Amino acid sequence: MKTFITENFLLQNKTAQTLYHDYAKDMPIIDYHCHLSPKEIAENKRYRSITEMWLDGDHYKWRAIRSAGIREENITSHIGDASYDKQRFMDWASVIPKLIGNPLYHWTHLELLRYFDIDELFDESSADNTYKKTNDIISKSEFNTQYLIKKFKLDFIGTTDDPIDSLEYHKSIKNQNISCIITPSWRPDKAVKIDLAGFNEYIQKLSKVCGHNIDSIDDLLNALFSRMQYFKDNECSISDNGLDNFVFTRNYSKNEANIILRKSLNNETLTNEEIVKYKSYLLVEMGKKYADYGWVMQLHMNVLRNNSTKMFNLLGADSGFDSIGDYSYASQLSAFLDTLDKEESLPKTILYSLNPSDNGVLGTMLGNFQGDGTAAKMQLGSGWWFNDQKNGMEQQMIALANLGLFSKFVGMTTDSRSFLSFSRHEYFRRILCNLIGTWVEEGQAPNDEKYLAKIVKDICYNNAKQFFNIK
Amino acid sequence: MKTFITENFLLQNKTAQTLYHDYAKDMPIIDYHCHLSPKEIAENKRYRSITEMWLDGDHYKWRAIRSAGIREENITSHIGDASYDKQRFMDWASVIPKLIGNPLYHWTHLELLRYFDIDELFDESSADNTYKKTNDIISKSEFNTQYLIKKFKLDFIGTTDDPIDSLEYHKSIKNQNISCIITPSWRPDKAVKIDLAGFNEYIQKLSKVCGHNIDSIDDLLNALFSRMQYFKDNECSISDNGLDNFVFTRNYSKNEANIILRKSLNNETLTNEEIVKYKSYLLVEMGKKYADYGWVMQLHMNVLRNNSTKMFNLLGADSGFDSIGDYSYASQLSAFLDTLDKEESLPKTILYSLNPSDNGVLGTMLGNFQGDGTAAKMQLGSGWWFNDQKNGMEQQMIALANLGLFSKFVGMTTDSRSFLSFSRHEYFRRILCNLIGTWVEEGQAPNDEKYLAKIVKDICYNNAKQFFNIK
Amino acid sequence: MKTFITENFLLQNKTAQTLYHDYAKDMPIIDYHCHLSPKEIAENKRYRSITEMWLDGDHYKWRAIRSAGIREENITSHIGDASYDKQRFMDWASVIPKLIGNPLYHWTHLELLRYFDIDELFDESSADNTYKKTNDIISKSEFNTQYLIKKFKLDFIGTTDDPIDSLEYHKSIKNQNISCIITPSWRPDKAVKIDLAGFNEYIQKLSKVCGHNIDSIDDLLNALFSRMQYFKDNECSISDNGLDNFVFTRNYSKNEANIILRKSLNNETLTNEEIVKYKSYLLVEMGKKYADYGWVMQLHMNVLRNNSTKMFNLLGADSGFDSIGDYSYASQLSAFLDTLDKEESLPKTILYSLNPSDNGVLGTMLGNFQGDGTAAKMQLGSGWWFNDQKNGMEQQMIALANLGLFSKFVGMTTDSRSFLSFSRHEYFRRILCNLIGTWVEEGQAPNDEKYLAKIVKDICYNNAKQFFNIK
Repeated sequence: MKTFITENFLLQNKTAQTLYHDYAKDMPIIDYHCHLSPKEIAENKRYRSITEMWLDGDHYKWRAIRSAGIREENITSHIGDASYDKQRFMDWASVIPKLIGNPLYHWTHLELLRYFDIDELFDESSADNTYKKTNDIISKSEFNTQYLIKKFKLDFIGTTDDPIDSLEYHKSIKNQNISCIITPSWRPDKAVKIDLAGFNEYIQKLSKVCGHNIDSIDDLLNALFSRMQYFKDNECSISDNGLDNFVFTRNYSKNEANIILRKSLNNETLTNEEIVKYKSYLLVEMGKKYADYGWVMQLHMNVLRNNSTKMFNLLGADSGFDSIGDYSYASQLSAFLDTLDKEESLPKTILYSLNPSDNGVLGTMLGNFQGDGTAAKMQLGSGWWFNDQKNGMEQQMIALANLGLFSKFVGMTTDSRSFLSFSRHEYFRRILCNLIGTWVEEGQAPNDEKYLAKIVKDICYNNAKQFFNIK
Repeated sequence: MKTFITENFLLQNKTAQTLYHDYAKDMPIIDYHCHLSPKEIAENKRYRSITEMWLDGDHYKWRAIRSAGIREENITSHIGDASYDKQRFMDWASVIPKLIGNPLYHWTHLELLRYFDIDELFDESSADNTYKKTNDIISKSEFNTQYLIKKFKLDFIGTTDDPIDSLEYHKSIKNQNISCIITPSWRPDKAVKIDLAGFNEYIQKLSKVCGHNIDSIDDLLNALFSRMQYFKDNECSISDNGLDNFVFTRNYSKNEANIILRKSLNNETLTNEEIVKYKSYLLVEMGKKYADYGWVMQLHMNVLRNNSTKMFNLLGADSGFDSIGDYSYASQLSAFLDTLDKEESLPKTILYSLNPSDNGVLGTMLGNFQGDGTAAKMQLGSGWWFNDQKNGMEQQMIALANLGLFSKFVGMTTDSRSFLSFSRHEYFRRILCNLIGTWVEEGQAPNDEKYLAKIVKDICYNNAKQFFNIK
Repeated sequence: MKTFITENFLLQNKTAQTLYHDYAKDMPIIDYHCHLSPKEIAENKRYRSITEMWLDGDHYKWRAIRSAGIREENITSHIGDASYDKQRFMDWASVIPKLIGNPLYHWTHLELLRYFDIDELFDESSADNTYKKTNDIISKSEFNTQYLIKKFKLDFIGTTDDPIDSLEYHKSIKNQNISCIITPSWRPDKAVKIDLAGFNEYIQKLSKVCGHNIDSIDDLLNALFSRMQYFKDNECSISDNGLDNFVFTRNYSKNEANIILRKSLNNETLTNEEIVKYKSYLLVEMGKKYADYGWVMQLHMNVLRNNSTKMFNLLGADSGFDSIGDYSYASQLSAFLDTLDKEESLPKTILYSLNPSDNGVLGTMLGNFQGDGTAAKMQLGSGWWFNDQKNGMEQQMIALANLGLFSKFVGMTTDSRSFLSFSRHEYFRRILCNLIGTWVEEGQAPNDEKYLAKIVKDICYNNAKQFFNIK
């Protein structure tokens, strides 16, 4: 049976169809925040099998497979072992039909169609055929990461990198003839999260990379700033800050931050108040540097991570045991942004919350700090992680439209580790065009194709190109 | 004038209509969590009048009547007094037309149609006729609780029972030849809520039922566990925990719980911290026992109860003065579930929040603790209480679909005290079929009747049957 | 190009169209809560230009213009200077096309059509023509505030006034022959917000107006109560309380409030606990007086104000730097209402939250305190501020319908400073009629024109007339 992904998939009216097919579809892609591996690009990685591509690293799918009742040993125990590839694939085939209404159901069929030209419902009955067809294509020598980047017309990829990263693969990429611009992004979470296990070890690693001791807050700032300079020299222009439970206080001093850091390095226990002060100090100092460098600051908030101790001990972080937080943080976020703003040091900023109930809070927070003559300097990030689906994307766009400047939205980014995720930009663009088309059909927006086409193309591509200063 | 409840009520497209009429409509009903009275089933209760059925115990309706401006003395002062039946009925008839858009408007007309074959708009002009027709039917000897259970094809009813309950009526039911399985559920709230007035008195009653003193936490656990065994012996396999403002800490010990309990029994005032520690200890110990027994644990959260002191003093609890809470509890809920999970003692669980803004939090919390090879071991409860209406149900199902495993959803339960509420399963099923039908119409799901029919039947019946191990 | 505002703008089905055109459209308007200037009414103000009308005082538009990247000096630096009118107007014309999906896009075109008979898309290409046509009309001597009030059939306007206001303009209005009733509303925020800069200065001003020293809580209450009596004598019957972060405790005493007030007047720093106690005391004492006087109490909650220190220093409050809060306040709000209720001193009340995620909390809070034989004594305020748009209004109405008594809703108010905002009542009425029409089309409500027409007219006008006791 053919899938549901017809030419007009998700495009429920004529305007939507025209906007998508004539304007959105063929725009190149800017994936400004993702977790693609620079190594896999630099080495032009090929894949063992569709199982590797789909199931070796995607904790989103693991989570769904666990929910469907398949035991952990069949999900993560044999990653990388080709002799289990077929069985793990068949398990996934048995789960997919249970995922009606879930974005994985759409994504998976979209990937089969766009990467492998398979337009068949994926389930246990079609699985053998699908396994063979996908692996035949994957086994061809041209099916590699750089081919996929080109095939999907990626113009820009922003990876996510730790301050201690050597960026060797980014350098290697630069020396290759790749049409897409691929730059590192600065993700300093490990230096910020003084409350997490491993902080002191991380500081030691950072010290080693920088070649000087880190015994004080000045040492730490010097280390971070030298790495920021290094990232900048390697074309980084975006930072990403995973803040989970966002906390901030105006009541901190550099001296306090110094004492707190030294306590931590001395293995003393910190109070909550101390943790908040340290984080506040560091976020502000880095924020000022972002502004100074003209970088974009991304803030990802309201996440509960590693909820299952049992599974964290077994698999570590990023294994599918995270969920949406319900923290109240609006006034603290405001205080943080204001602290930078009043020193004329607020960088261009994108706000993301994992909790869709926060759309109103963030959608209006933007307006408090717009200005400086920069259009849409403050952005509401596209439906992120669990919200990266039709309802989540629509809610994010409707909130932004009602509360801010939708036409200047920098649009979709995948936040993904997978080279199969590029088709999600198609998913987003269809939803975008359908939303605008629906406004027109319902008489809420003028039926002016030229006007609407510009907005669509801007959100798909031009706004991001301008916002991130992509040449 | 005929009502709006046509054959295709709420079914807005062809797929929805086919799914409902051909697959959902005739499935038996599993009402796994309700407040039906075992006594009224055991004694095969008959009713004085439609007024008794509708207005003697339904605080949902009282609340609406108060809102409409009718004085309390006409609502609750004459409950049970037949001489006021007509007047109270007429008041309700005057209120119903004001309830456009409210689920009571739908429920009431659905009840008139399905229980009494009355397809007429209910208002003051039709009230006399309706009063007569309903009471004629109610006065017939066969119109009793067991008849209604049979008429609506109930296969399973899970009542809600206090640990000190003798379960005598459940025993009596078991000795009668009723086609429906009716089992008690364990609701230990009174033993948990050490912060509420009446706790010490409750512990005394529990002590009496168990035949030993309760002077320590060991005594209390022994008492509760002996009652759980008693409930188990009487076929209980479900617990329900009304947690209102969910609180939990990992920092408690049995010894602390013991001291706190003794303080309470000694009439000393407890600190908030002590209350949280006591509750945490007890919830974990009972949770482990649920897992041990293979029971399902239901958690009902984010409620503000008894908001009006004036009316609480007049009418007591459950009189229509409760509302939706806005507590932040995600990290505490996570810690509770994790505490059980890391000891391999997390039972099958259903999470309910009264606040629909929590759908994202709970929908993703599920995935943190799925696994063990049990499909959809963690469930998001169907639209509960104030959310038991079209929008609330749709939001719950859309959240579950996007974030979890909709196809394994255990579906609707009424949480009701009324034998007239069985028709709400029809309400739910129509909304369910309409949602899936809409996905198909909009091209988001394959138009595969066999595939969709299975999902519909599973959510209406099969999933619950499997989840609750109903024979 | 013609705008999108056709005869059936926002009316997507036949029932909606009939309800709007035959019943809603011609009802007079009650704008029970706005910030129109009594002075501008009393003096029958005329306008310099469309720029003055649109851009001299509307921080909602300033915010949008900033977002679009126009520098502050072109937004607020030349307010009132006619020589910049054209340029500021052209800037606004350049911003409007970027506001697709934003209520300003709808409002602006609606204003052009209804006030100036201009049915053309507003952008840079049409701006010259629009500037000329609007200013031609504005320059006519009859185009003044009282004309606009009459043209839009205003029956009642409730302004927003500080306790120290002399109400001289209200007196002047009363002496003029205006068909619309225009009364002051009591907004005592400055006396409540003891934590804000300027509190002590405000108390001094209040003291001066009242002619006696304010050295104690009794002095303050006497001052406020004498002003309330003065407001009452000037036909005030509505209070409005901007509570931002709503806080309340039951644990306060008059003596404590007295000590706290004296500390403040003595320039001592107050603790958070003291601030909460003072506010609690004052809100309760004023609440009792509202009930005594039969006034309506409006509570506006969950706002973060003046988020940008830089811009606050430049422009002061109410300049477009406010946003939605995410405070948890349900239990505190409940305690406040209960404190009044149990003394039989709860006035008629309207609850507004700026956070649309609170709709469920407030929609159910109403029901806790309905009663006394007053229909819909507790009201959920219409979509407020950032929620004053199609989605926000629909969500508010759907929440109210599901959780309360929609048919008794007092409906729309503009909360606006602008005489151009009256057309927003049309906007609301179209959305209202469309919502009810959609219920009918989808089979959720009976297709009974007479029944529906009454509900529409009640929500547009009759309910407010009754609720506010408008003669």
